[in-house]
Amino acid sequence: MVDLSKFIVESRDLVDSVLDRLVPSADIEPVRLHEAIRWSLFAGGKRFRPALLFAAGIAFGAEEEKLVRTAAAIELIHTFSLIHDDLPAMDDDDLRRGRLTCHKKYGEATAILAGDALQTLAFKAIADDQGLSFEVRTRLISMIAEASGSPVGMVAGQQMDLDAEGRDVDFDHLQRIHSWKTGALIAASAVSGGLIGGAVDEDVATLKRFAGKLGLLFQITDDIIDITQTTETLGKTAGKDENAQKATYPGHFGIERTRELASEAANDAKLELGRLAVNTTLLSEIVDHTLNRTF
Amino acid sequence: MVDLSKFIVESRDLVDSVLDRLVPSADIEPVRLHEAIRWSLFAGGKRFRPALLFAAGIAFGAEEEKLVRTAAAIELIHTFSLIHDDLPAMDDDDLRRGRLTCHKKYGEATAILAGDALQTLAFKAIADDQGLSFEVRTRLISMIAEASGSPVGMVAGQQMDLDAEGRDVDFDHLQRIHSWKTGALIAASAVSGGLIGGAVDEDVATLKRFAGKLGLLFQITDDIIDITQTTETLGKTAGKDENAQKATYPGHFGIERTRELASEAANDAKLELGRLAVNTTLLSEIVDHTLNRTF
Repeated sequence: MVDLSKFIVESRDLVDSVLDRLVPSADIEPVRLHEAIRWSLFAGGKRFRPALLFAAGIAFGAEEEKLVRTAAAIELIHTFSLIHDDLPAMDDDDLRRGRLTCHKKYGEATAILAGDALQTLAFKAIADDQGLSFEVRTRLISMIAEASGSPVGMVAGQQMDLDAEGRDVDFDHLQRIHSWKTGALIAASAVSGGLIGGAVDEDVATLKRFAGKLGLLFQITDDIIDITQTTETLGKTAGKDENAQKATYPGHFGIERTRELASEAANDAKLELGRLAVNTTLLSEIVDHTLNRTF
Repeated sequence: MVDLSKFIVESRDLVDSVLDRLVPSADIEPVRLHEAIRWSLFAGGKRFRPALLFAAGIAFGAEEEKLVRTAAAIELIHTFSLIHDDLPAMDDDDLRRGRLTCHKKYGEATAILAGDALQTLAFKAIADDQGLSFEVRTRLISMIAEASGSPVGMVAGQQMDLDAEGRDVDFDHLQRIHSWKTGALIAASAVSGGLIGGAVDEDVATLKRFAGKLGLLFQITDDIIDITQTTETLGKTAGKDENAQKATYPGHFGIERTRELASEAANDAKLELGRLAVNTTLLSEIVDHTLNRTF
């Protein structure tokens, strides 16, 4: 039996210490920009993607020191996406994780630039990772860039999400939006761990399918939490997605069917893990943790 | 004698054909995003940075086919920066190169995402460049990411430029803003050519100093053009920088002294070229072309 809570705390602390070194300190010019970056980066994030990357890497025998910079890079990209998604022109959120969003605190211009800089820092972090071969660094950058962009990544998903606002979208379309907006970078996290651990192509493909299901689960539970929690608990404006008639699972299927879909996604993810001939205990526990999460 | 005009047209056509392949076509979902990307990418840009990269690479014996993807990648980053700089929260420009800016045509949300996607596409283009060794790809990505971000790159320069608005800035500060905002990516273009051509570290350092002076020259002539051209000729709102009391050379030194500074920068750039034991005719002609440009 693995102590998942301990693992999550330890991987979070490890990645946070590397993030602190990767990002310019707040007393370096331009100060406002670096303060804004740190405001959003160290805002109590769960570091879910780094934990997943660690768990996948450890399953394939990678040492933590070889995993941590890529884990940090993915968190940099995730943070960039949160900052830009919160902007007035996008989701227009004032609060995230219980405090002001980047643009509410530092202004729109600086928030846009903070997101931009976070993306450059992410790719530089991987390119400079001397613990990895040049080939692995190159493969990671290519894969993570694809998962972050368009037409099959995070930016594409955000655009499709905006396009879907106020429209009645069918289930396939809804799934596609989520698989790009949230799932792609989650899948990239698991695949990165496998690549660094030297997983063969077939196992990388399995990891990708596994993480696709996990990403789906993550999005479904996110939607459930959003409508069932109060604003105070959540630190952001609860029910906002529903109010905006956005493409959410509960809005489309109702809460009961949405909970069933969550269980199905968890089972599908575990089926994929069963195809791997390595110790996937940690990965399996992350699935359970995601299914049962309340924040 | 080299025919620089012919070289510039040929390198532009070559990089445009690769850009067309690197960027998702406008009929792929999300259509709006890919249309927006192409609107700004194929807007009649001069492709100055690609031309410089080609010239530096050719000086060091690199074949064009090894240079063109990195040249395209830098143009993707340059275009991302233009889209974001034009946003209402930043410089708030309605026109660029004689037509609507990205956000005026496609809305702010899509413009922000188009810039974000362009950055991912740039790093993926280099990571996937099979004509280059994994080591060279990795070095290029690290160097270009640094030049694009903060604290010593393009994003830092844009933040410092915003911070300087309405304030009286001294010459050193003005130079620093420009060297980051515009100069860093121009320097990265020249250095990329050298790296791909296998230049030794000392020559790479010389290329960087050369391009630093060329970037300075580029910024000074940009400022001169901005105040001397009419809006109709320029395709953007002329005199805007002056109106906004931004940190421009003519606003600080007057037009006569600014012209002298341009000549000095051109001479300094050529002095650096004199230190290289390769044929720098093309690079030298780019300096003259930049000094004498009127658009």
